[in-house]
Amino acid sequence: MTEAVMMSVEALQNRVLAIFERAGLNKIQAAALAHVIVAGERDACKSHGIYRIEGALRTVKAGKVKPDAVPALAPDDGSAIVRVDAQGGFANAAFELGVPALAERATRLGIAAMVINDCSHFSALWPEVEAVTARGLAALAMCPSYATVAPSGGSKPLLGTNPFAFGWPRKDQPPYVFDFATSVAARGEIELHRRAGKQLPEGWAIDAAGNPTTDPVAALEGAMMPFGGHKGSAIATMIELLAGIMIGDLTSPEVLDYLGTTILAPFHGELIIAMSPEAFAKGRPGDPFARAEVLFETIVGQGARLPSQRRFAARIQSEAKGISLTAAEIAQLDALLAGGLAAVN
Amino acid sequence: MTEAVMMSVEALQNRVLAIFERAGLNKIQAAALAHVIVAGERDACKSHGIYRIEGALRTVKAGKVKPDAVPALAPDDGSAIVRVDAQGGFANAAFELGVPALAERATRLGIAAMVINDCSHFSALWPEVEAVTARGLAALAMCPSYATVAPSGGSKPLLGTNPFAFGWPRKDQPPYVFDFATSVAARGEIELHRRAGKQLPEGWAIDAAGNPTTDPVAALEGAMMPFGGHKGSAIATMIELLAGIMIGDLTSPEVLDYLGTTILAPFHGELIIAMSPEAFAKGRPGDPFARAEVLFETIVGQGARLPSQRRFAARIQSEAKGISLTAAEIAQLDALLAGGLAAVN
Repeated sequence: MTEAVMMSVEALQNRVLAIFERAGLNKIQAAALAHVIVAGERDACKSHGIYRIEGALRTVKAGKVKPDAVPALAPDDGSAIVRVDAQGGFANAAFELGVPALAERATRLGIAAMVINDCSHFSALWPEVEAVTARGLAALAMCPSYATVAPSGGSKPLLGTNPFAFGWPRKDQPPYVFDFATSVAARGEIELHRRAGKQLPEGWAIDAAGNPTTDPVAALEGAMMPFGGHKGSAIATMIELLAGIMIGDLTSPEVLDYLGTTILAPFHGELIIAMSPEAFAKGRPGDPFARAEVLFETIVGQGARLPSQRRFAARIQSEAKGISLTAAEIAQLDALLAGGLAAVN
Repeated sequence: MTEAVMMSVEALQNRVLAIFERAGLNKIQAAALAHVIVAGERDACKSHGIYRIEGALRTVKAGKVKPDAVPALAPDDGSAIVRVDAQGGFANAAFELGVPALAERATRLGIAAMVINDCSHFSALWPEVEAVTARGLAALAMCPSYATVAPSGGSKPLLGTNPFAFGWPRKDQPPYVFDFATSVAARGEIELHRRAGKQLPEGWAIDAAGNPTTDPVAALEGAMMPFGGHKGSAIATMIELLAGIMIGDLTSPEVLDYLGTTILAPFHGELIIAMSPEAFAKGRPGDPFARAEVLFETIVGQGARLPSQRRFAARIQSEAKGISLTAAEIAQLDALLAGGLAAVN
């Protein structure tokens, strides 16, 4: 049995990169995937860490994502829309290609949008909004998912868990960032309750007949509920409209029809909106970045957390001392590196 | 005693316009205010109907809004930001001035933003997102309020009830529109519980010491809670950042400091983002407007409502048969028309 290991962020990056290249991904796809997966592990965000490697490779093995895709940035058409065609590859590589153009456009025009089309999407959105904030811009990001959530007052799965993320740049420290599912809970949490034989909290789900249930098995056959009642349901619907229909890509029910399963990474598009606080605040009193710090201090000063605070604390630890991986995790990485796609269930 | 009356939308518009002009508002301010107030009454949205006239006039009487302000549209600077200086008047007149420029910019660039600065804001946001959808565009609108809501995990009022609104244009029928406070309940609802001697539902509020309370009196001395726990709290914080700080205008705590009360209309700014589905969907398969109809049909088909459905049903009634006003409401309108600002408490 391999021993538990303390691995530097860079060493883990190289290991994960090698796994993806061994499985047949080209350098562009492998590097972008390794980057977000290692970022998750580094930030102690285990649900988006190395645990995700197998899901990404399972999608490759099923032929539902192109491992050798080369994303294409459309030429500047004079508008505020930056378009990246992921060419059937992962969203992450397409995002990395487009973000300099998005930042240039938003800095020049004040507000701009990036559309990613025809991509496979399986990562959190916070690495993307963080990348935009690193260029001094505020960012909004959203995308559909698979139809597993009923609209408020409805009885059947229609909406996705549709993540919604936002970032605001801060000087000399990590940005203000939130990134959450618009469902009340993640599907994985319901699965964990099922395995543990535990009832769900009230309000999480409905059964196949549309009745409220606390039974995780009935919930998995039924639908999850949006967060915050009709308000969260409205936001999830907005995400279908803006980041599915408006950008000419699949909605959550169309994704599920296309894949026929929720164990592969969903195939759809993504919308990122970037705004320049400097451009917006121009000619107005006060420095927006300094004023935002006053707001954050007041939040923290009354005992509330800023979102992502725990993640940023873990990042400091990981960068100083490395990332701790269990013997089982190391064995899994070794098996994937040795076996490539054949090692994927 | 005056009898109950059925009044046409146009007749009510003229009556409310006359009240505002009698109270000293110039034509621009009076017409824009009458428009949104009559729209509220027409849509059976009583909390934003003629009941609001007195609050608007109270703010004029207190010298916290300029009744004769002439909003100013900044010249096109080649960016995607349309700026309107409300010059200390109501937001509504500034919005009406800026909306053609916003629509032109969003149609041309795909996405654009309108910033309204130095305005008094007391109306719902749905009349504004509806006006943008009437030009074939999707719209997001948001603004701060007064600090009456504690951040999730916090203990004191900091955030406003910060409304968040969205609209999507539909052909030959009213748009898809939502508009909600990011607090779990409106302050007025807590006041109604107090008057009725009823306890609040759990989760609505905390007392002055930061502990959860169901006592409406303790809640009014403490703080309201955001909707949807930490997720709603994050959205309300985002609104402070984007529609307060980024646009160089007041945040909710600054509004409350400036006014010293919550009985006057808050003075701050507003952010509206407009997007062209035609521009975004260009070159992609499918017509975004037709695809959106499929989504709406599926929502309604499973027994869920679309937001604003009740409001649009009331609108059809009002436009066909007029608006029913009680004798007390007519008497109040008569008193305001006869007395002007002197009739305002």
